[in-house]
Amino acid sequence: MDTCNKISKFMQKSGHECRVMGVPKTIDNDLYGTDHCPGYASAAKYVATSTMEIYHDARVYDTPMVCVLEVMGRNAGWLTASTALAAYKGAGPDLIYLPEIEFDMDKFIVNCKKIFEKSGKLIVAVSEGIRDKNGKYISEYGSDLASEKDSFGHAQLGGTAQVLADILKKELKCKTRAIEFSLLQRCAAHLASATDVEEAFTAGQKAVQCAVDGTTDHMVAYERSEKDGKYVCNYVLVNLDKVANTEKAVPREWINKEGTGLTQDYINYALPLIEGESKPPMENGLPRFAKLKKVLAKK
Amino acid sequence: MDTCNKISKFMQKSGHECRVMGVPKTIDNDLYGTDHCPGYASAAKYVATSTMEIYHDARVYDTPMVCVLEVMGRNAGWLTASTALAAYKGAGPDLIYLPEIEFDMDKFIVNCKKIFEKSGKLIVAVSEGIRDKNGKYISEYGSDLASEKDSFGHAQLGGTAQVLADILKKELKCKTRAIEFSLLQRCAAHLASATDVEEAFTAGQKAVQCAVDGTTDHMVAYERSEKDGKYVCNYVLVNLDKVANTEKAVPREWINKEGTGLTQDYINYALPLIEGESKPPMENGLPRFAKLKKVLAKK
Repeated sequence: MDTCNKISKFMQKSGHECRVMGVPKTIDNDLYGTDHCPGYASAAKYVATSTMEIYHDARVYDTPMVCVLEVMGRNAGWLTASTALAAYKGAGPDLIYLPEIEFDMDKFIVNCKKIFEKSGKLIVAVSEGIRDKNGKYISEYGSDLASEKDSFGHAQLGGTAQVLADILKKELKCKTRAIEFSLLQRCAAHLASATDVEEAFTAGQKAVQCAVDGTTDHMVAYERSEKDGKYVCNYVLVNLDKVANTEKAVPREWINKEGTGLTQDYINYALPLIEGESKPPMENGLPRFAKLKKVLAKK
Repeated sequence: MDTCNKISKFMQKSGHECRVMGVPKTIDNDLYGTDHCPGYASAAKYVATSTMEIYHDARVYDTPMVCVLEVMGRNAGWLTASTALAAYKGAGPDLIYLPEIEFDMDKFIVNCKKIFEKSGKLIVAVSEGIRDKNGKYISEYGSDLASEKDSFGHAQLGGTAQVLADILKKELKCKTRAIEFSLLQRCAAHLASATDVEEAFTAGQKAVQCAVDGTTDHMVAYERSEKDGKYVCNYVLVNLDKVANTEKAVPREWINKEGTGLTQDYINYALPLIEGESKPPMENGLPRFAKLKKVLAKK
């Protein structure tokens, strides 16, 4: 949105007529001025569904099971929060840590021990960007652990989830597993939310209509309302100056007091967004993707 | 199947009447005596679909992109082979390495360089269990790299994909990414193959029918045939003695000469198995799982 704004201002300054409309898009869901962002709900649906499946996988065997799930999000925990939807359905993480809250390693270990000792199972979801009170990324703790070796004589290092899984392995004295949703959480089109897909199309359409009608320097934003008790999405315009370079975090009051889970407010916010399956076209049991062809103009 | 066999032999020896029927189940697809195993096709469908999605994600940006995908399979490469279905659809790995073929690091690097220098993009799929000519797991190469440090001063180590991604980072002088399908590939019920689900139900049914009818010491196996040019699955019985402790690898002739991909024989084998979507019941945009209740018997 900052780039949209800069392009528009540059064109005006240099005397070119050019209308610039921003269409939001980010699975991070951290754009200011819009209730939510196109792409977020589909990624959230994927993360929540995969978390539920991992939860059930963990309960197939009658053995201890500790899993740390790593979800994208450097500064905003919206996508990690979506694992709370799995918990709401009774098949989610025991603990959820967002970058909005300072991460306290000692408290984390105490919380994990308590749950693990009770049930022999533990699932934790973390944002890749969680930091301690000094602003140090937990993923950077890996270097402090470099002296730890596994049975192969390997130093055990990696991303945020791997660092925490290694610490829990030592503290809980059991096998632990780190799972990164990695690129999959942002590209799993096969599990897109029908609501998200429809809203995204409409947002693009509105932007083109506005530009054609003479509007410029605005972003198409989503505004949430209700009709007969049901979720409705309205499309409004927000000035690009307002949107550029402002990040929207998960509100503190939507995170529980201990900073280890989400409140019902988040569940109510997210549930209508992930509604419906988009059912992409299939061919031979696999998704069929649209292909844009390069067409050379005739001379 | 070995356990089925042992239980049955023990019961016979100790004079208890007990009929034991084996129902196969493994995403590894490495059971002897059956064309394929329940569970394999669903995991293959997930792996192939996710690979296609990662392929498209890699092409969104006009920057170099190197991805190493790690798929389950210690001794048999069936599941890694399923990434060839994505390649068959024009959106898969450039190179595929199975544990059936000795892994040669020098040739691997030459192959990768050739592809990367041409297109700036490279996707490689590997089985977790690939080994070199001395039988050393590639994942063990990590310890040799312990002296390599990243920008945080971390030693870069991990599983098979991480080891190869670290080597390629150095050789190709670009950012690389390791992606493990981890538990997701064996529990992603939301993307199950309808063909697989139907066959699995039928296999279980046949086993119960056989046991009731007096049969014992057999496994229900799948036999592939054709009707009007279309794939048909028949259910036959195989003696447990024959199945126990025999592993079925991917046939050498289904792997290309260089050991870096699969032939059309594998595609023809796998395509009918992943056909159809099982569409599990949904609730609030998330899958609804069956719950078995403990019912206490009345005294």
